[in-house]
Amino acid sequence: MSIKVGFIGLGAMGYPIAENLAAQFDLAVWNRTRSKAEPLAAKGARIVDSPADAARESEIVVTMVANDAALESVVAGDGGIARALAFGAVHLSMSTVAPATIRKLAQVHRDAGSILVASPVFGRPDAAAAKKLWVCTSGPGAAKEKAKPVLDAVGQGTLDFGERVDAANVVKISGNFLLAAAIEAMGEAFAMVEKLGIDRAAVANAISQTLFACPAYKGYGAAIANKRHSPAGFGLALGLKDVELVLKTAHEVDAPMPTASLLRDRFLHALAMGRGELDWSAIALGAREDAGLKN
Amino acid sequence: MSIKVGFIGLGAMGYPIAENLAAQFDLAVWNRTRSKAEPLAAKGARIVDSPADAARESEIVVTMVANDAALESVVAGDGGIARALAFGAVHLSMSTVAPATIRKLAQVHRDAGSILVASPVFGRPDAAAAKKLWVCTSGPGAAKEKAKPVLDAVGQGTLDFGERVDAANVVKISGNFLLAAAIEAMGEAFAMVEKLGIDRAAVANAISQTLFACPAYKGYGAAIANKRHSPAGFGLALGLKDVELVLKTAHEVDAPMPTASLLRDRFLHALAMGRGELDWSAIALGAREDAGLKN
Amino acid sequence: MSIKVGFIGLGAMGYPIAENLAAQFDLAVWNRTRSKAEPLAAKGARIVDSPADAARESEIVVTMVANDAALESVVAGDGGIARALAFGAVHLSMSTVAPATIRKLAQVHRDAGSILVASPVFGRPDAAAAKKLWVCTSGPGAAKEKAKPVLDAVGQGTLDFGERVDAANVVKISGNFLLAAAIEAMGEAFAMVEKLGIDRAAVANAISQTLFACPAYKGYGAAIANKRHSPAGFGLALGLKDVELVLKTAHEVDAPMPTASLLRDRFLHALAMGRGELDWSAIALGAREDAGLKN
Amino acid sequence: MSIKVGFIGLGAMGYPIAENLAAQFDLAVWNRTRSKAEPLAAKGARIVDSPADAARESEIVVTMVANDAALESVVAGDGGIARALAFGAVHLSMSTVAPATIRKLAQVHRDAGSILVASPVFGRPDAAAAKKLWVCTSGPGAAKEKAKPVLDAVGQGTLDFGERVDAANVVKISGNFLLAAAIEAMGEAFAMVEKLGIDRAAVANAISQTLFACPAYKGYGAAIANKRHSPAGFGLALGLKDVELVLKTAHEVDAPMPTASLLRDRFLHALAMGRGELDWSAIALGAREDAGLKN
Repeated sequence: MSIKVGFIGLGAMGYPIAENLAAQFDLAVWNRTRSKAEPLAAKGARIVDSPADAARESEIVVTMVANDAALESVVAGDGGIARALAFGAVHLSMSTVAPATIRKLAQVHRDAGSILVASPVFGRPDAAAAKKLWVCTSGPGAAKEKAKPVLDAVGQGTLDFGERVDAANVVKISGNFLLAAAIEAMGEAFAMVEKLGIDRAAVANAISQTLFACPAYKGYGAAIANKRHSPAGFGLALGLKDVELVLKTAHEVDAPMPTASLLRDRFLHALAMGRGELDWSAIALGAREDAGLKN
Repeated sequence: MSIKVGFIGLGAMGYPIAENLAAQFDLAVWNRTRSKAEPLAAKGARIVDSPADAARESEIVVTMVANDAALESVVAGDGGIARALAFGAVHLSMSTVAPATIRKLAQVHRDAGSILVASPVFGRPDAAAAKKLWVCTSGPGAAKEKAKPVLDAVGQGTLDFGERVDAANVVKISGNFLLAAAIEAMGEAFAMVEKLGIDRAAVANAISQTLFACPAYKGYGAAIANKRHSPAGFGLALGLKDVELVLKTAHEVDAPMPTASLLRDRFLHALAMGRGELDWSAIALGAREDAGLKN
Repeated sequence: MSIKVGFIGLGAMGYPIAENLAAQFDLAVWNRTRSKAEPLAAKGARIVDSPADAARESEIVVTMVANDAALESVVAGDGGIARALAFGAVHLSMSTVAPATIRKLAQVHRDAGSILVASPVFGRPDAAAAKKLWVCTSGPGAAKEKAKPVLDAVGQGTLDFGERVDAANVVKISGNFLLAAAIEAMGEAFAMVEKLGIDRAAVANAISQTLFACPAYKGYGAAIANKRHSPAGFGLALGLKDVELVLKTAHEVDAPMPTASLLRDRFLHALAMGRGELDWSAIALGAREDAGLKN
Repeated sequence: MSIKVGFIGLGAMGYPIAENLAAQFDLAVWNRTRSKAEPLAAKGARIVDSPADAARESEIVVTMVANDAALESVVAGDGGIARALAFGAVHLSMSTVAPATIRKLAQVHRDAGSILVASPVFGRPDAAAAKKLWVCTSGPGAAKEKAKPVLDAVGQGTLDFGERVDAANVVKISGNFLLAAAIEAMGEAFAMVEKLGIDRAAVANAISQTLFACPAYKGYGAAIANKRHSPAGFGLALGLKDVELVLKTAHEVDAPMPTASLLRDRFLHALAMGRGELDWSAIALGAREDAGLKN
């Protein structure tokens, strides 16, 4: 008999994940806007009326919501999942939220007899649809073991970071920090080459074909070289939020991160220039302005 | 009839390149220490007594020497190649040297009637042996066209950056700058996760399997996570030299590069700690020390 | 007949200020630890039992408390001054607190019919005793006018920053930021001269006698040159708090402050090295460690 | 009988110094443009035809020239002073030049039997006229002793930094570094307060009346607050030169100076914006642009 799974949050990332899970499990889905859930009924999912309903009979409930406040509300609010879950049932939290939020909600779950496993993912919606996500996990070992069939159904692999419950979220925001650092470095290099009269796009192409033959450098390299920062794949304001989460988390353990400090200043400059709605790669325009280039 | 090619500089990079050229062209080789050239005689190369001898009858001469001073000596010194080359013959300069040096030597060649083409490469000695280098070129179009058979015999592809003769060298040092920036960012992230009690090596593995699935992040990520900075694949003092070349080149066009400034300070710190003989990835120890971790 | 004034908070700064006010006004004083207030009775002050009692009959009440939480409690808590003050009475807040706290409490006062005037001070306890403080003010003009006799009795002058109520507190933390920036710059310069074999103390003496003939450079210069960071005149953890207030306030208006970012990283490094109890000038040890000098 | 003194370089600083020396010593003066020397004849000075002529019969020769190249030419060129000076005669070098230049020229003097004493000064032309300069000295003790009457006639005091000959020049450029750091910090603070709607000029006035009651903060604070960066008291391009001298000197001893790195980037930005002719305090415009303010 199929495992009962709950799913909460059908945004751009959540929907394709839920669709994959519907094919394999007995799935109960909830979304704030119910109409977005309806196509999943045809795939065998039950649409329910509250997060608690999605959790009540499930062995595992997955959340993929927009931000920390939404996650707190879904877990610990009235009709939240922490109390609705059966004793020993598992909550897989896939959202990119603050490590501190994860620690706090893990305690809410413990108090209620259920278990939180952090499980943020690397990958865009198309990777979610193709089951090509990478899932980072952290939390109690037995709970991760129990959740394995669901984790396996979502991505191409699971990367575990131990028992410290917020570890996977630390890794997730660290990954975003590394991306932002690469964007900034390319921004500086491309501003220099442009002032020297060298073709930025040729340079972007060269480095992403040789030293950095990976999609991040290829995609962001081309975006920066062509100043193509709209529409936003990942919004600039969200990027700043993640960099500030990194700085805050590093602050908790007294770890200075000068590159993150530099990035924070670049994001603030971009906001000051009215670029909050652009893709976060638009921070690279700062290096151009520093060099006196017109944007 | 085979093209006559000269080759100067049989170091770790130069030797395998020369070996590949010997299989295809009528090759004259010169090396400061003659004994290193001798195995190439068995592959059909002629060993000659001076750079000028390597250049005299060649349509194309390739140099791969240790540094700017060596290149200046080989080109413009007594017995140098600039005057030895026939009118219209081409010098492919593959060394990683300052753009300013390339500009200066291009003029020396022009005055002598020969032509300099900058052609630094991306890739390590094993890539050179396997003809898997990427060659960056810049300089006069007709000269690049003439040199095409040699360029094709060396790597898996040629990336051209136009007529400005030092452009390819700017790209080369920009690539090294991007590598150093990635090293620093990983150093900062890994110091933070260590202080949080998260396994550095697991994080390094995760990011190089997901966001940054490319050899640079994989190799340097593992080196930083495991604090394995010896033996040096690329020495720390050389790394500083390249970062300073980037800063100097950016200075010429008034382009601030704050990440490069930060890197310079990291390299100086590493030198102050006596790490000049380690691999340049040892700059990552600085972020650990900033965070109060023992090395 | 003498103006009725209330005074709350008899710490190292508050006590000498209250003593000066007792000589001139009809003063009601309150302190959490009553015994510290007792010597003021002999100077003519009445000792009261709550902040509300200090406020009830006063035209002006002055607070000089330890931090934001203490100020919020004294103003808005049970028995707080906002409701106890008569309609139109004025609260002079002299503590160094967050601009955001001032804005919030100004609203509490407005709702209660009383008026907040921010009035943080520059100067140490000895300056307070000698009436040599400088008072920075901001808030409603009529209220500042009304408070003038009290302000005049406290310092050698009042510097006004207009009607925006938190302006004076922004100026106060900006002043601390400028001090920290000067400390860092001296730390860097003195680390360099030491490595060159030049006498740090002679350099500190020279610059504070010539370019920077003011107590801040003289005092901090000598402290840094002699690595004398204990006892703490101003604790390192408090220094970090102020730098972070500056960064947070600047964030509200999207203003990057790279020097403040650098300072934040220096303070974190100092905390990571266990220097939280030292004077904030101990951040200068960071530049020494960067340069490989032993501390 | 009066000491015979030579003087070379009658620029804005040199002229008033020479005028003071003419009143007290038997002075021989040389200037590249002879006409500028003529008024000194009326004060008793002899005008001579070459640096060598100024040096030949002098016990002490003072130089105050525009830059390193001018100093090298005057000392070591044809008709230079190193060889013209009598055995044991002293050269007081008052120009702000690179420590490395001083070391090199000290050797030229030693080889020629004369002695170099570094003696750069703090103070502007008006201070020079009023004998209010501070003179920093370094070099051989006996030579400094011999030069004492001349040093005393120039300023209000001498600050000695020992036998290392370039020490005084290190101190001089360190002082300029500290000034630039203060300018940058004020620039950042004033940009923030402006965005908050607080009067910059009031803030500048406040801090230079309280925490930093010294001419540097007063003068530069007002200049930055009022965006008054022309005419240049000290040109922006010269300011960058001094910051780069600091970085270069620090590099010699592997001392990272992150504030100096940040300053360098600010100067480059200012040059990129076409501000090379403005006063160096114009680097403060960079913080405004970072914050999205129009200049």
